[in-house]
Amino acid sequence: MRGRLAGYERHFARLFADYFDGLERTLDAPPHSAFAPECLSLLRDLSLRGGKRLRVALIHEAARLVTTEPVPALDDAALSIELLQTHGLIHDDIIDNSPTRRSGPSTHHAYRARFPDHPQVALGLAVLAGDLAAFLSQQVLLDSTAPLPLRHAMLEVQTRAATATLLGQIADLERDFAALPDEETLHEVAEYKSARYSILAPLQLGLLAAGADPRPFDAELRRYARLVGICGQMRDDHLDLFGDARSLGKPPGNDLREGRRSYAVTAVLATAGGRDLAVVEAALGDPGCSADTVEAVRDIGRRCGAEERLRAGIERHAVRAATEAAGWRPRWREEAVTFFEALPLQVLAGVG
Amino acid sequence: MRGRLAGYERHFARLFADYFDGLERTLDAPPHSAFAPECLSLLRDLSLRGGKRLRVALIHEAARLVTTEPVPALDDAALSIELLQTHGLIHDDIIDNSPTRRSGPSTHHAYRARFPDHPQVALGLAVLAGDLAAFLSQQVLLDSTAPLPLRHAMLEVQTRAATATLLGQIADLERDFAALPDEETLHEVAEYKSARYSILAPLQLGLLAAGADPRPFDAELRRYARLVGICGQMRDDHLDLFGDARSLGKPPGNDLREGRRSYAVTAVLATAGGRDLAVVEAALGDPGCSADTVEAVRDIGRRCGAEERLRAGIERHAVRAATEAAGWRPRWREEAVTFFEALPLQVLAGVG
Repeated sequence: MRGRLAGYERHFARLFADYFDGLERTLDAPPHSAFAPECLSLLRDLSLRGGKRLRVALIHEAARLVTTEPVPALDDAALSIELLQTHGLIHDDIIDNSPTRRSGPSTHHAYRARFPDHPQVALGLAVLAGDLAAFLSQQVLLDSTAPLPLRHAMLEVQTRAATATLLGQIADLERDFAALPDEETLHEVAEYKSARYSILAPLQLGLLAAGADPRPFDAELRRYARLVGICGQMRDDHLDLFGDARSLGKPPGNDLREGRRSYAVTAVLATAGGRDLAVVEAALGDPGCSADTVEAVRDIGRRCGAEERLRAGIERHAVRAATEAAGWRPRWREEAVTFFEALPLQVLAGVG
Repeated sequence: MRGRLAGYERHFARLFADYFDGLERTLDAPPHSAFAPECLSLLRDLSLRGGKRLRVALIHEAARLVTTEPVPALDDAALSIELLQTHGLIHDDIIDNSPTRRSGPSTHHAYRARFPDHPQVALGLAVLAGDLAAFLSQQVLLDSTAPLPLRHAMLEVQTRAATATLLGQIADLERDFAALPDEETLHEVAEYKSARYSILAPLQLGLLAAGADPRPFDAELRRYARLVGICGQMRDDHLDLFGDARSLGKPPGNDLREGRRSYAVTAVLATAGGRDLAVVEAALGDPGCSADTVEAVRDIGRRCGAEERLRAGIERHAVRAATEAAGWRPRWREEAVTFFEALPLQVLAGVG
């Protein structure tokens, strides 16, 4: 399976680069503008710094649930979903004021570096670059050579996923105003903000492109996507607080310092008591919170059982997701079902 | 004709309000989120404060070029283009940091007032609100009951117009870095930033919805849209510098103070000389520039002939646009052709 994933990644890297080459030649931009090609170049840079392309792999494996024949529309689906991702990352980095993304500058900060004396212009250009990626992600599907009903069904999936993601991001910002968000709120954020476009939409797009109608299986695909989304988010949140700096690539405790009510932060807040709780609450949302304080919060989280509870939550959701996928076995192709069954267990293995 | 326009406006006001009523009931938002309905409510407020709805009138009149029968898809086209406008206004007001829009708070500043201690959250929610409007504008066309090929053709028009607008906004920000942009650069900005989605797309959408294929007439529709876009922009820029405070609803000179190389500002820069030019250059981009200084620049503009030249430019472009529309007479319905012929001359009449 690892070989298949690497194959998708290589194929897509080439496809995405070719897409941007073509775009630079064909996009109907104001002929005298130098900023327009510069914007495309920043979109290209961020887009091609893409890592493992899990969404692309899911699209391909979803098609393999029903066929091993080549499925031409998969490439358009993959380009569209990764352009949507580029859109989301650019606007996300504006929302979080993040200087870096995918081991390089965020688009907003690339523009800041380009226009050090014009922060408002830099902000404006970053907003527009993100908007452009959103409409390009639609255009790719409109331009697809797939039959019209398929193109339309893919656009429908992609647009609904985009809307769900935006509403999930809104709910995510809202979450941090709660003293202690309840578990269902955290699950909803994970589902809407991540699972819909990263798991559910790729599943639906791959099935559609391969000629299968995903609608009869909507409820179970959604359950699977939500469970994988939840355990993936729990894993990320667990790593952010309890992971080690080496595997994180940065010091732990970012969510804590930024006052983010992640699964991990919420678990500690809900479990710690007395003086421990006071330590956690003092650290929460304090950007200057020291490494020692983060270490103290990690200790509290381990001592009070929050870390263990979170780990158990990840395992529980991963096992439920795997069970959900296993239920697809009689209907769909064995090797692809096995992929979807194994995916949540890999998330589980990623918890250090 | 005035009665027909008022009729479109009334019909659309009801349609748009009903659309938002329906959306509040049907949108798949995270059930526990209070911020999501609040965002919809801000989208609704801004969208319904819409004024004369020229784009909607153009869509209806474009259909009347070929038929007087009811054309059901016009409503979806109108909703989509006005939602795209809502998206553009929200992000534009972030880019310009504008506190007001359509005689009310901009969405960004509405969020600032709601979260006075969290400017970054206010910015984030405004970015997301604008994004949401963009995807809703696509969703309206996807959900249309029009036949699939028509829906697809309308989406194609809408998405290309959206992309052109974004590239025009990028070129607009770029323009203000030029010491003295040339005329073609100003025309390109007007064409991409305004004419494509405000004139060309409504024309194409109306024709498509009425069952006519606009593609054979692409070149002439584009010429018309560009000319109307240019003279409309020239008129706005003329008013901003040379208009009187009463008809403007605010003191003149905004573009000058913000360093915007509008048609009017550029004309003065290109024409004034010696000490006059020094006065204009000192005022340009000075947010604190006094009313007296603006008055001095207005005098210079009139004295050096820049104002007269700009007025002549508006007239030239309006007449060319009207002539272009008059050329449609043998092919399309008389009364609608007359509407498109009269439109640029109304722009002309709007120059005080």
